[in-house]
Amino acid sequence: MLQYAHTYYCILVLLVGTAVADYKYETKLFNVPLDHFGYQRNETFNIKYLENEDHWDRGDGPIFFYTGNEGQIELFANHTGFMWDIAEEFRAKIVFAEHRYYGSSMPFGNKSLDNDHIGYLTAAQALADYAELVNFLQDNRLKPRYPVIAFGGSYGGMLAAYFRMKYPHLVAGAIAASAPIHMFPGMLPCNVYHRIVTSSFVVANITCKENIKQSWSVIRNFVTTKNNTDWLHKQWKLCDPIKNTTDVQNLIDFLQSMYETLAMVNYPFATDFLLPLPAYPVRTVCQYLNQKLTGQKLLVAIGHVLEMFTNYTGKSPCVDYKKGNDYGNLNASGWDYQACTEMVMPMCTTGESDMFEPNPWNITKVSADCHKKYNVYPRPDVARLEYGGDRLLAASNIVFSNGLLDPWAGGGILSSISDTVKAVVMIDTAHHLDLMPTNPNDPESVKIARSEHKRNIQQWIREFQQQREHEKKL
Amino acid sequence: MLQYAHTYYCILVLLVGTAVADYKYETKLFNVPLDHFGYQRNETFNIKYLENEDHWDRGDGPIFFYTGNEGQIELFANHTGFMWDIAEEFRAKIVFAEHRYYGSSMPFGNKSLDNDHIGYLTAAQALADYAELVNFLQDNRLKPRYPVIAFGGSYGGMLAAYFRMKYPHLVAGAIAASAPIHMFPGMLPCNVYHRIVTSSFVVANITCKENIKQSWSVIRNFVTTKNNTDWLHKQWKLCDPIKNTTDVQNLIDFLQSMYETLAMVNYPFATDFLLPLPAYPVRTVCQYLNQKLTGQKLLVAIGHVLEMFTNYTGKSPCVDYKKGNDYGNLNASGWDYQACTEMVMPMCTTGESDMFEPNPWNITKVSADCHKKYNVYPRPDVARLEYGGDRLLAASNIVFSNGLLDPWAGGGILSSISDTVKAVVMIDTAHHLDLMPTNPNDPESVKIARSEHKRNIQQWIREFQQQREHEKKL
Repeated sequence: MLQYAHTYYCILVLLVGTAVADYKYETKLFNVPLDHFGYQRNETFNIKYLENEDHWDRGDGPIFFYTGNEGQIELFANHTGFMWDIAEEFRAKIVFAEHRYYGSSMPFGNKSLDNDHIGYLTAAQALADYAELVNFLQDNRLKPRYPVIAFGGSYGGMLAAYFRMKYPHLVAGAIAASAPIHMFPGMLPCNVYHRIVTSSFVVANITCKENIKQSWSVIRNFVTTKNNTDWLHKQWKLCDPIKNTTDVQNLIDFLQSMYETLAMVNYPFATDFLLPLPAYPVRTVCQYLNQKLTGQKLLVAIGHVLEMFTNYTGKSPCVDYKKGNDYGNLNASGWDYQACTEMVMPMCTTGESDMFEPNPWNITKVSADCHKKYNVYPRPDVARLEYGGDRLLAASNIVFSNGLLDPWAGGGILSSISDTVKAVVMIDTAHHLDLMPTNPNDPESVKIARSEHKRNIQQWIREFQQQREHEKKL
Repeated sequence: MLQYAHTYYCILVLLVGTAVADYKYETKLFNVPLDHFGYQRNETFNIKYLENEDHWDRGDGPIFFYTGNEGQIELFANHTGFMWDIAEEFRAKIVFAEHRYYGSSMPFGNKSLDNDHIGYLTAAQALADYAELVNFLQDNRLKPRYPVIAFGGSYGGMLAAYFRMKYPHLVAGAIAASAPIHMFPGMLPCNVYHRIVTSSFVVANITCKENIKQSWSVIRNFVTTKNNTDWLHKQWKLCDPIKNTTDVQNLIDFLQSMYETLAMVNYPFATDFLLPLPAYPVRTVCQYLNQKLTGQKLLVAIGHVLEMFTNYTGKSPCVDYKKGNDYGNLNASGWDYQACTEMVMPMCTTGESDMFEPNPWNITKVSADCHKKYNVYPRPDVARLEYGGDRLLAASNIVFSNGLLDPWAGGGILSSISDTVKAVVMIDTAHHLDLMPTNPNDPESVKIARSEHKRNIQQWIREFQQQREHEKKL
């Protein structure tokens, strides 16, 4: 997930340049009602899902079901290597289901994201889509035959957990990776996300964080003359010159977003997940900022960071700092809308607990912006009422995994709630590394987490089979 | 609940002549969104709820929350004496929440039941209304202060169970009385309901059942001449003469519905619940049918049954056999719509396992009728997918109580599913007697059931308080 500075609608995004993995799947369509919870609208439409049965035991092998999140489903399929890595061992069928209103699962074609049509984009409707799909995959059996294990990362992890919580009769258990289910209004201070981003830089090098913290006033003071903005334009290889205060703000937002992303994808190996970056990118960029810098020297150093962030492959001619939420091959419109309706996650910066300029979170302003943009007002309490935040004592068979280097971990479940709602904490990993393919550079923590996952999945399958045996006898 | 013969949309109804109880409550309104699961429609409207705090411990006393079903909420408040009877002991606040689209909780005023407006009448939307109301009653606290116990009978019992299943973070436990949550397509044979109705008459007197079973052909053979229909019109005090085959069918449907209702409300005391009747009405009416009768003698006897059923108080001038679903002071339109959308409960008669004329259940015919009437097609699987039928291993803190004289018991949970999803079976009681006020004639079984309920409620409150203490320490 990406979190965009300034507007503070968090963007939970997987951006993939080119697919690295060579996973094979069939692409299929499944018809669902537009509205599962009412009958005023009788339209139906197709959601897409990807399926692989290479290793499946058709007798009673499990179904590994990825609850797709905000993006084209192929992106998730290509980057959730953990499911592919363990499918053979579990003799599992693999299914990746695309979330309505993303990718090509559009209820109203290219008009789906219009304000007149977008209103059926909610987590509850997506979960009901998945429920119907799972039922179809079980051949509409009253007593399902295959244990279904839900997987998801980020918002997809929230959905995986919610899927088990709301549909335990359909889902045997859920691996919810980096799922900030405790990030709704009132649940935690709004500055947590950026405090963790900042920590990530402190861990790399405290001076690095100090330099970044100083940089905002240095930039603002510097860009007051045409000479200086021309210099910066050239030095930072900006696509557009800095002409006014909006441009300055865009540039600062872009930088803040860059630091957040670096913290989120601070993986122990080079990857093009989100975007192409070297191993441990925070540590790497901090090499430019590991001694106290001021003035233009600081700006030159940040230029190197920008270069690494935007042009690690050497193919990007300039820094497109104005592009805002139109990021890569993902249309983030859908998520912006979700953040304006039910996925209200307060985020703020203080300039004290974090290395950013102070920027409060204000529901009144968020509401006004959302109403202007989408003609809706957020319902800030609805996610808590529907899904309960961390009040999960009655839930079961969910693993919440989080890496402490991940800014989203602040909204995650970091200690086990019960014997069957467990937390797995990886102290040295970033955003849902445990769902990614095995890598020689994986730290011990993620290896342990994956063993934990496998052990839990085995347990859930056993329970399902016991129940099934019991049902057969009835 | 009533089940109407022939059309086979079961009508889950509480019909009350005059309120017998003297329960006091404040009547309040609570604003809810029309659509909880989408944002295309931004209307809100008020649902009604009734509140009594006479015995409430405002420090941390529980909230007894009745999840209103298909009818005016006052009807349920006045006949759910169990909640009132135990409120003082538990120092509980009592709340009865009215189901959207019933009573005066109408989203679109007197146009609410029009086909253009009725589409937001679903169990899921009603449950989400209740979730918001419970949150309001907790003063919107992140960590709720008062344990909430859900109560409901019949469809209200289904809602109470579903409320705990879907919102366990808001509801500590549920007493689900006579809730046929296992009555959806494929779950049980369609003839079960009428088999139990028939058993009820067999238990009273086997000859009674034989007479009823014979009566259908006797009636049909008899009403072929004007003389005979005139005789029957007068003998049975019918409001309207029998002029054609539709009238004959209406009369037969009315009689079938009468026997079903008698079985359902076969209470050990005289009551005006549903309609005024003596104690053990099945046994009472069978006194007219306890020896083998044929021809007009049988018709005379059934005339006595009709008289007792329709005119126990002596105030009803004639038998209005054509009134169909317009029954008493309840507008059953809403439930007919629910039966045509998500509450699809197959019902059939075979003439072999029951004492009625054979009448198969046919989803194609039901669909066509529903489409004609409401412009909707039923989604026969949706209740199973949303609520799981009897696959409740992951649920907790629910008591399902059923009386074995109740035809709806066939769709109930009759054996405990786990330590925390328990069945309470009363062998000699009818439709949710356990929720009614204490009566000197109560059989032992219902007294035991109520003690069981109280013990479970205490346990759920203790658990809630332990959780609350734990949260305080965090």
